[in-house]
Amino acid sequence: MPQILRINCRTKEYSFDEVGPYVNLGGRALTSRLINKEVPADCHPLSAENKLVFATGLLGGSTAANSGRVSVGTKSPLTGGIKESNSGGLFAHKMPKMDLLAIVLEDKPADEAPFSTLFITDGKVEFRDATDIVGMDNYPAHDKLLEQYGNKLCAAMIGPAGETVRQTATIQFTDPYKRPARSAGRGGTGAVMGSKKIKAIVLDPEFANKVSPVDNDNFKTARSTWIDIIKGHPVTSEGLPGFGTAVLVNVVNEAGALPTKNFRYGQCDHAADISGEKMAEIIESRKGKTTEGCHVGCIIQCSQQYNDADGNYLTSGFEYETIWAFGANALIKDFDDIATMDRICDDKGMDTIEAGNTIAVAMDGGILPWGDGKAAIELLKKVGTGDPMGMIIGNGVEFAGGAFGVDRLPTVKRQSMPAYDPRAVKGVGVTYATTAMGADHTAGYGVTANLLGVGGSIDGLKKEGNIELSKNLQVATAAIDSMGFCLFVAFAVLDSDNGVQTMADLVQSWTGNTFTPDDLIALGVGAMKDEQDFNERAGFTKADDKLPRFFETDPLPPHNVTWDYDEDELQAAKV
Amino acid sequence: MPQILRINCRTKEYSFDEVGPYVNLGGRALTSRLINKEVPADCHPLSAENKLVFATGLLGGSTAANSGRVSVGTKSPLTGGIKESNSGGLFAHKMPKMDLLAIVLEDKPADEAPFSTLFITDGKVEFRDATDIVGMDNYPAHDKLLEQYGNKLCAAMIGPAGETVRQTATIQFTDPYKRPARSAGRGGTGAVMGSKKIKAIVLDPEFANKVSPVDNDNFKTARSTWIDIIKGHPVTSEGLPGFGTAVLVNVVNEAGALPTKNFRYGQCDHAADISGEKMAEIIESRKGKTTEGCHVGCIIQCSQQYNDADGNYLTSGFEYETIWAFGANALIKDFDDIATMDRICDDKGMDTIEAGNTIAVAMDGGILPWGDGKAAIELLKKVGTGDPMGMIIGNGVEFAGGAFGVDRLPTVKRQSMPAYDPRAVKGVGVTYATTAMGADHTAGYGVTANLLGVGGSIDGLKKEGNIELSKNLQVATAAIDSMGFCLFVAFAVLDSDNGVQTMADLVQSWTGNTFTPDDLIALGVGAMKDEQDFNERAGFTKADDKLPRFFETDPLPPHNVTWDYDEDELQAAKV
Repeated sequence: MPQILRINCRTKEYSFDEVGPYVNLGGRALTSRLINKEVPADCHPLSAENKLVFATGLLGGSTAANSGRVSVGTKSPLTGGIKESNSGGLFAHKMPKMDLLAIVLEDKPADEAPFSTLFITDGKVEFRDATDIVGMDNYPAHDKLLEQYGNKLCAAMIGPAGETVRQTATIQFTDPYKRPARSAGRGGTGAVMGSKKIKAIVLDPEFANKVSPVDNDNFKTARSTWIDIIKGHPVTSEGLPGFGTAVLVNVVNEAGALPTKNFRYGQCDHAADISGEKMAEIIESRKGKTTEGCHVGCIIQCSQQYNDADGNYLTSGFEYETIWAFGANALIKDFDDIATMDRICDDKGMDTIEAGNTIAVAMDGGILPWGDGKAAIELLKKVGTGDPMGMIIGNGVEFAGGAFGVDRLPTVKRQSMPAYDPRAVKGVGVTYATTAMGADHTAGYGVTANLLGVGGSIDGLKKEGNIELSKNLQVATAAIDSMGFCLFVAFAVLDSDNGVQTMADLVQSWTGNTFTPDDLIALGVGAMKDEQDFNERAGFTKADDKLPRFFETDPLPPHNVTWDYDEDELQAAKV
Repeated sequence: MPQILRINCRTKEYSFDEVGPYVNLGGRALTSRLINKEVPADCHPLSAENKLVFATGLLGGSTAANSGRVSVGTKSPLTGGIKESNSGGLFAHKMPKMDLLAIVLEDKPADEAPFSTLFITDGKVEFRDATDIVGMDNYPAHDKLLEQYGNKLCAAMIGPAGETVRQTATIQFTDPYKRPARSAGRGGTGAVMGSKKIKAIVLDPEFANKVSPVDNDNFKTARSTWIDIIKGHPVTSEGLPGFGTAVLVNVVNEAGALPTKNFRYGQCDHAADISGEKMAEIIESRKGKTTEGCHVGCIIQCSQQYNDADGNYLTSGFEYETIWAFGANALIKDFDDIATMDRICDDKGMDTIEAGNTIAVAMDGGILPWGDGKAAIELLKKVGTGDPMGMIIGNGVEFAGGAFGVDRLPTVKRQSMPAYDPRAVKGVGVTYATTAMGADHTAGYGVTANLLGVGGSIDGLKKEGNIELSKNLQVATAAIDSMGFCLFVAFAVLDSDNGVQTMADLVQSWTGNTFTPDDLIALGVGAMKDEQDFNERAGFTKADDKLPRFFETDPLPPHNVTWDYDEDELQAAKV
């Protein structure tokens, strides 16, 4: 019987509750409902009234391919709005085996209270002294946990960025290779965990009930169809496994949509040096791995193991957005510098997109020279150390802009934009503007139809069709995030006749509850409604569903396109 | 014929324009109208699209007592909303003598452009090289200007805080004693001037046309009545001249409304050590001056000259709010430390209210010990130096809260609260919540009826009557700010039968245009409507017309009162 585990971080009391009003929800739909219902929209994100929710998807614990994403929900310290950030790793499939649908961290102890590691086992939660890992980077701290809890460790943790409540702080999760390399990256969820003085959450490696589909036969059939769908699409079967998400560097650059030098240009001269093809070449030459999965059950395998020049492990989960942010947007050419920053971000527990954009803003403010990877590395290292420059860098683009006097800030709702210039990929631009999350490509990935010809083809340079595209994708994505699927399944589903039906069949056969494609859409719409409602009560208006004015006034080379939506027409992208 | 001087800070072009649609406006009503009509509400405050307006009041240039305040308007870098901040000094009465109703700084040069001093004379504007004073504190830079322009210097200038576009940056004005001691203090107007690369504006000391009332006889009569009204009220004739605004320390402390230790308590143990009475004692013992005026024509004389222990000039314009912010709210007991910080703020060009509150937040964040004046002085000195800690401190409470991880932030619309706890002085609390300016006591000073028995008596601990009180005061204040009056005339007007009529008579006889008490009210309402309209388009909603939640949840000793208005009822305080 799935339960919601509520833990009071001040009193150390906890309860395993029936799911009650949160029945039939999972993942993002659950975190967003719970935050919307239980957190005062006007509270300070680091105050005792905020909550931090970890939720498994509707297919959590199942063997449905690519269904192992865990959702983290809270009021975001970065945006001041609601936030769901999801991650791979081992958490999502482990929780149902412990009868947990969600874990909710509530309240917070005094500022001077020590950090704890939460150890969760069968019907019991222990606050364990975390002194031995406090202040440590995620990799060495995770190694300590491996020593203590063994090789079946399944942890969520924060690094120095989260401990010091930086607004870019991530929560890192144990991946299938015993590394804390998977991130709930965006919106500063790690800062909320830090404010509650929880350094890590460990799910008892020894406690695992057996879980199985309610309707085994139909689940087996759907599961098999599902594998065929994913394996049958070129993006999910060839592009992503071959070059990781970095396959996009050349694609987006050729399209003139790769934001370069703090969103001044749509093409980057050294794109070839930071491409997926180049990365694969480096990895192979150093005997790393070009394909890995972020969670058990992944059949896309877009992750990798990137070794340093000596052939030692340096990083993984090394995404296109990270490479773009440091590489194109901050003009850093050296792949190893970029990989080093990816590792530093995982170690400090920082969002790589926000970090890369922040470095670009620091360059715009004259704090370091454009393209200087070594200086950028030194800046990132200051985060979480008590150094005031680290306080600034660790708080992201808007904050750094305020510190450095830079007014060119590519943000929506104080969250900085990912690797697609909204002027040239308007389908994703509409998503940046209108999603409750702040600028977020994963909330409605219009790159599909705009650049990849997936799910049809809509010109990203023109307005026509892009509001509808974004809205449909936003709804579908909210559903995907609620079932626990990896977003990349969408590539296959969008070009498949039976993709949505198969996802619904998987949920229905796994849970035993009726679940149709209409229910799937309703799940997505419901999540978005919760998010919009929370943000509205937190004070967001249509004036916040907007891009900064420089996108309207400055044409983007080479296509010399501008952002040309008005405030009111964009509202049609919301539910 | 009054004109509006527009200066393009990028092209260095300028024009002396007819007032056109801005006829019959002055001071705040003019700055707010102009900003609302001409500045895109969604622009970045430091971008080229923002403007910075200096406007004299309707009575600017006249000999009406206490009518020499200059209004500065812009989109605020601190709040993101519209801002009018007004100041004493010589500017307001000088402008009409140069046929200037307003000076509007537009556009901005490249970031790497050098700073200029604008020299304004008859029909001409020169951009003069400011290299010799760039980076200098305001007092020494002002001394340099005195050397260059002589003893009739009339300047507006920014210090290192403004040059580095800190969000607390003031614009400082030459006072009648040849010091840059008068501030347009709140909302970061100095950062906008800095973004436009203007270090100082000098109004040609040799250019002064004669100005005179259109209706001389009636002006003389009204002027004389006006003096009687101000001289006839105990606050304006005895309290303020005797002890300066610091007369309030004991009054507000006794009422249990003196915010102490970052708004935790309503009384401060060492209030007597930082009182107006104590200040007068120190000043007299060191042969300073207990009374001075901030502008020519002031008959209240609430300013002073505060000397250091050696008898040398240290500071002036040393206000209650400054003494409270550093003294009670940051628990600093040493009057000389506080006076030193007042001077540092004037020298750097920083808002003392925001600076004092920021120091308290830094203490809450463990950056320095509570009450440590010497450490606070060192922190303030870092502002404008390129030191990252100075970037943080110079950006105010919300920013420092983000840097130091403090969630107890006494702000509204990102501007921090002045020296009256809103739980115990609800009349001013309603103003904090609802004015377009962010938390601002001068926008509707409910302390009058709540604590001083001026204009009637309304209990500040209870809700009854305080919304109406605040609204009436907000309208009257907007009118006062538009005529160019010092706000303190309100003490006398509120207890006078013919105060409003006399103000109207002064305007009518000075300008020759019909101006009744109804017109006066309409002037105030019009200014507020412009401000509310701008903010609404900038994305502010009723969710922004709110105090932070801790005022609702934490009772304030000794009266143990909380803030208990709901969002909707507060809207009645707006026009």
